[in-house]
Amino acid sequence: MPQRVVIVGGGFGGLTVAKRLKGADVDITLIDRTNHHLFQPLLYQVATGGLSPADIASPIRFVLRRQRNVRVIEDTVIDIAADYVTTATGTIPFDHLIVATGATHHYFGNDHWEQNAPGLKTLPDATRLRAKILEAFENAERTGSADMTFLVVGGGPTGVEMAGAIAETARHTLRRDFRKIDPSAARVLLVEAADRILGAYPVSLSAKAEAQLAGLGVEVWTSALVTKIDDGSVTLRRGDREEQLMTVATVWAAGVKASPLGEALVPLGAELDRAGRVKVSPELTVPGHPSIYVIGDLAAVSTNDEPVPGVAPAAMQMGSYVADRIRGRTSKLFRYRNKGNLATIGRSAGIADFGWIRFAGFPAWMAWLGIHIFFLIGFQNRLLVMIQWAWNYVTRNRSARLIVRYDE
Amino acid sequence: MPQRVVIVGGGFGGLTVAKRLKGADVDITLIDRTNHHLFQPLLYQVATGGLSPADIASPIRFVLRRQRNVRVIEDTVIDIAADYVTTATGTIPFDHLIVATGATHHYFGNDHWEQNAPGLKTLPDATRLRAKILEAFENAERTGSADMTFLVVGGGPTGVEMAGAIAETARHTLRRDFRKIDPSAARVLLVEAADRILGAYPVSLSAKAEAQLAGLGVEVWTSALVTKIDDGSVTLRRGDREEQLMTVATVWAAGVKASPLGEALVPLGAELDRAGRVKVSPELTVPGHPSIYVIGDLAAVSTNDEPVPGVAPAAMQMGSYVADRIRGRTSKLFRYRNKGNLATIGRSAGIADFGWIRFAGFPAWMAWLGIHIFFLIGFQNRLLVMIQWAWNYVTRNRSARLIVRYDE
Repeated sequence: MPQRVVIVGGGFGGLTVAKRLKGADVDITLIDRTNHHLFQPLLYQVATGGLSPADIASPIRFVLRRQRNVRVIEDTVIDIAADYVTTATGTIPFDHLIVATGATHHYFGNDHWEQNAPGLKTLPDATRLRAKILEAFENAERTGSADMTFLVVGGGPTGVEMAGAIAETARHTLRRDFRKIDPSAARVLLVEAADRILGAYPVSLSAKAEAQLAGLGVEVWTSALVTKIDDGSVTLRRGDREEQLMTVATVWAAGVKASPLGEALVPLGAELDRAGRVKVSPELTVPGHPSIYVIGDLAAVSTNDEPVPGVAPAAMQMGSYVADRIRGRTSKLFRYRNKGNLATIGRSAGIADFGWIRFAGFPAWMAWLGIHIFFLIGFQNRLLVMIQWAWNYVTRNRSARLIVRYDE
Repeated sequence: MPQRVVIVGGGFGGLTVAKRLKGADVDITLIDRTNHHLFQPLLYQVATGGLSPADIASPIRFVLRRQRNVRVIEDTVIDIAADYVTTATGTIPFDHLIVATGATHHYFGNDHWEQNAPGLKTLPDATRLRAKILEAFENAERTGSADMTFLVVGGGPTGVEMAGAIAETARHTLRRDFRKIDPSAARVLLVEAADRILGAYPVSLSAKAEAQLAGLGVEVWTSALVTKIDDGSVTLRRGDREEQLMTVATVWAAGVKASPLGEALVPLGAELDRAGRVKVSPELTVPGHPSIYVIGDLAAVSTNDEPVPGVAPAAMQMGSYVADRIRGRTSKLFRYRNKGNLATIGRSAGIADFGWIRFAGFPAWMAWLGIHIFFLIGFQNRLLVMIQWAWNYVTRNRSARLIVRYDE
């Protein structure tokens, strides 16, 4: 009888395990809460109207439709035992389990901030944020109020991309659309608690990114700590000074914490780190359970004495490694290879760090674009996103600027 | 001082008035509850995953961005007086008013049916319906239950298009995607109270449409009256027999009634017909108010002794007429010219009735496609929808098959 492999989560990690087990004599069950694989690195484009949800998401069962040894189930895993998982609708036994449920927002003990400063992890997050940003302009046009501050909290790649895209939208995309207000007068503020943005990059690239953001009209405040978020205002501390800013929309991009499913592994003996990630062995297993793997953003592991970052390439490398172990093709320890970091800033700028070479500006943007389109799942998505991108580039258009309310 | 023109509603009628007043010495305010013009004839494609919301909707202010005499406001009109309208946020005076707020679903006194048999008029309707249809297959795969009946109530163009698209999805698009169930075994039922479907078309075309639907695997029940709709079942009466059917998803396409804003015109002396439409004069005005026009699906008017149908071309013709009157370019009465009717059935069939010529099958489908793409607002939409359609045609793909829940 073939071994039963259960994968929880259809993100970059989980999907890689499934695909890498193609043709293997195993029975795979992939469980996800949603019906789609989501290309999270492009979520900010959905949130700013550049792309549609279907451009960056594919039904998981469609991606795996030709792989006969996988069954995909849309369900929620609520508990994990040593040899079966419990979902909202039943139990599923396994010989090998891969937990790959990723990460969610982290408000550092201020969960009530979420309502007024939503984060960006899922499609509903993105379309809600899109509605909120566009609604701010609509409100201003309706009331004639000219005072508009958009605030992005967190100077990591997501925050930088969001701030750049909002500034582009205000300065260019919406330029002709309003009569009472001038959208380009909107203020876009990027706030970072550390002393520079993009802390994972070399100092020289951080400086270049800051200059590129300034060119787009984004104000960058470093060493600025958010102390309070209300509906319509944010309080910041810089040095000894505390300051309250009136805002029309606030975006949270300041922190992530691991999926709560990590806690279900604690009764099996797993330890969690401060961000809720599961401390795994060098084989990516839960200590004492050689058949329970944790991969992707949910896993805390170091290789070469460096913590493996919570990025898509790391999740995919972990996924490949685990599939190889299950097939008996490797008995080595997991080792992460950093192939480079890229971030984009607005329409045609960015920074790139491939270790052996670092560059910024248009070439970095092109590299970012090429790599991201290449890794989009599904040929049609790639084609459509490429056309959309070319069109947006030429026209500075963001045609998916829909405000859709689901609570009406 | 230029005359103040207020247009309520950015559908086919309202948008045509605004565009046709381009360059006129008037001050136009266009008010809509949403920020987008919606191409309703293609909503069923969003509901079945063939297109994304942004493919069939454009921000109204984007469509009119180059027309300096229009201001677009996202707001809700709640009352109408003789020379001003009241919105949720204030009052707006007018010299000319055009009310063009269209129609909504009609459950014939059974509004509680809406929850279990949603209709299809807005983008949230379409994405909710999409989730409901796809969720039915997901539930079946999870539980292994093979019994699946989709029921579409109403044999007009929308019902026929929905039934055809659901059958296509089940028979072809999803064919490889599941392991426990066979999607092509799903039953798709189209139920019509009259003795034939597509009653607005000649008898010969109704028969052809029925044959084409049968070819797609849709069962058509005519002279069948819905008497009860519950969560998971529908009760039908055919002749003397009453029958209860278990259903996994029910779609309501059986009737429309006019927008409730018509009632705001009653205190000004307007009369409403049984469907809530405003009985307008041959100049499309509210009797006694020569500067208040009602157009589109909200207007009840006959020309050449025939009631003007609630279709997009009629709304656009009314819009042009009203704009011409405001510019003083016509003093004639409104006259509707029927340029033809088209309906599509599944992937490559349809029926066409242009009066002087009637045809069915692939040519009708091509005519339908060409005309619909031509009238899509915005060049980019047209291009992308064409590519998407070509791709879908070749691959029978429906890549926008996302289940997105907004209540989580």
